[in-house]
Amino acid sequence: MSENNKIGTYRFVAEPFHVDFTGRLTMGVLGNHLLNCAGFHATERGFGIATLNEDNYTWVLSRLAIELDEMPYQYEDFSIQTWVENVYRLFTDRNFAIINKDGKKIGYARSVWAMISLNTRKPADLLALHGGSIVDYVCDELCPIEKPSRIKVTSMEPASSLNARYSDIDINGHVNSIRYIEHILDLFPIELYKESRIRRFEMAYVAESYYGDELTFYKDYVGDGTYDVEVRKNGNEVVCRSKVIFVGK
Amino acid sequence: MSENNKIGTYRFVAEPFHVDFTGRLTMGVLGNHLLNCAGFHATERGFGIATLNEDNYTWVLSRLAIELDEMPYQYEDFSIQTWVENVYRLFTDRNFAIINKDGKKIGYARSVWAMISLNTRKPADLLALHGGSIVDYVCDELCPIEKPSRIKVTSMEPASSLNARYSDIDINGHVNSIRYIEHILDLFPIELYKESRIRRFEMAYVAESYYGDELTFYKDYVGDGTYDVEVRKNGNEVVCRSKVIFVGK
Repeated sequence: MSENNKIGTYRFVAEPFHVDFTGRLTMGVLGNHLLNCAGFHATERGFGIATLNEDNYTWVLSRLAIELDEMPYQYEDFSIQTWVENVYRLFTDRNFAIINKDGKKIGYARSVWAMISLNTRKPADLLALHGGSIVDYVCDELCPIEKPSRIKVTSMEPASSLNARYSDIDINGHVNSIRYIEHILDLFPIELYKESRIRRFEMAYVAESYYGDELTFYKDYVGDGTYDVEVRKNGNEVVCRSKVIFVGK
Repeated sequence: MSENNKIGTYRFVAEPFHVDFTGRLTMGVLGNHLLNCAGFHATERGFGIATLNEDNYTWVLSRLAIELDEMPYQYEDFSIQTWVENVYRLFTDRNFAIINKDGKKIGYARSVWAMISLNTRKPADLLALHGGSIVDYVCDELCPIEKPSRIKVTSMEPASSLNARYSDIDINGHVNSIRYIEHILDLFPIELYKESRIRRFEMAYVAESYYGDELTFYKDYVGDGTYDVEVRKNGNEVVCRSKVIFVGK
């Protein structure tokens, strides 16, 4: 297979209710599109959720890191490319490029996925699946952004808290991966979004949370426009961590 | 122009992060798609926001009523048809049909729009615009659901309140029309969504709210699975009203 055939390309438009007050696509919506592209690309190659579910397996997102020079503006066309960078026994790295209306690459993303058994909730051996054919899709396309980092939050003072409600919950009964992004973006005052934009956004998904869980958000400012965020449920257990790096416009 | 040429048809798929814990598309996402279709259809006919903005006019959504036999399930294709039912001096009625993967009409929606001047914020005369050509698009397609009703809420006890945050705000600096729907859906416990589904959902948009505004939600149960909701900002001014009718599954 040529390297080009290993890359999936999907087209989008920045819809009016998907942009923020500056007219730029929100990070939550971009995250949603990235995860959809991962699904399309995997499905087209026989590794989609529907096929996996038949064998009682599913994909679980572990890490996501997005880095951008700019976000698409309202009504602008853009596209997302995705490909598999690595496959290990328990994890696979999937990368993305975000391409603007003029065909220019305006950002990249990295994601790390595991496959789990729906029966045991234990990780599956990716190299054993479909006779190891997943490695045929590994592609050496360039993704010039750093890998997801380790995030450590020290603040003991909650920045915010909420109870997970109807709109937060996905078909698996979990708070959905995109809602965490939206709740984290809402920790920052609008003034910050007026004078700066998010250059890099990272998520580390650690544990699931459920309807009614109290989610508490802890936030450290670590200098240079960088914030580390930790979300805990019901007082202690870590649900996810995030790093948000703002730069002046 | 034949009646068929007056109807716009747009295709969608029920994405995984757009369905709720039952696997069905959420009312907020359907509302977003409806409003996008309104935008596509108007733009294709020279009445889109972009064209209007050049002349310092814009569309303002006043009412929305959606009634459904069922919602598309995760990964299902569906389509939305839209057409103009009436044009008056200050308002226009735009209707919708929601069509499932098998081509069956599973629901309808009605919307009422005004056009305002961005300079004066006053309503514009729709019949004067483009030499009155908007009436050429009026179509007598059937929309067998009731018009939006008058909603009256008597409860003095808030069901919930929140402050409008970054993710709530659209490019005009207002809380966006879809976020109100999501916040209203979150007033109901998940148990209600387990045993029943929303058969009809109405919104009446009354006034704008802004970043930082305290939104307070009042809710009356009026019997037969029907709830009336009123959203007020900063203690008194009504922002919008909603009627939500649940039926057993």
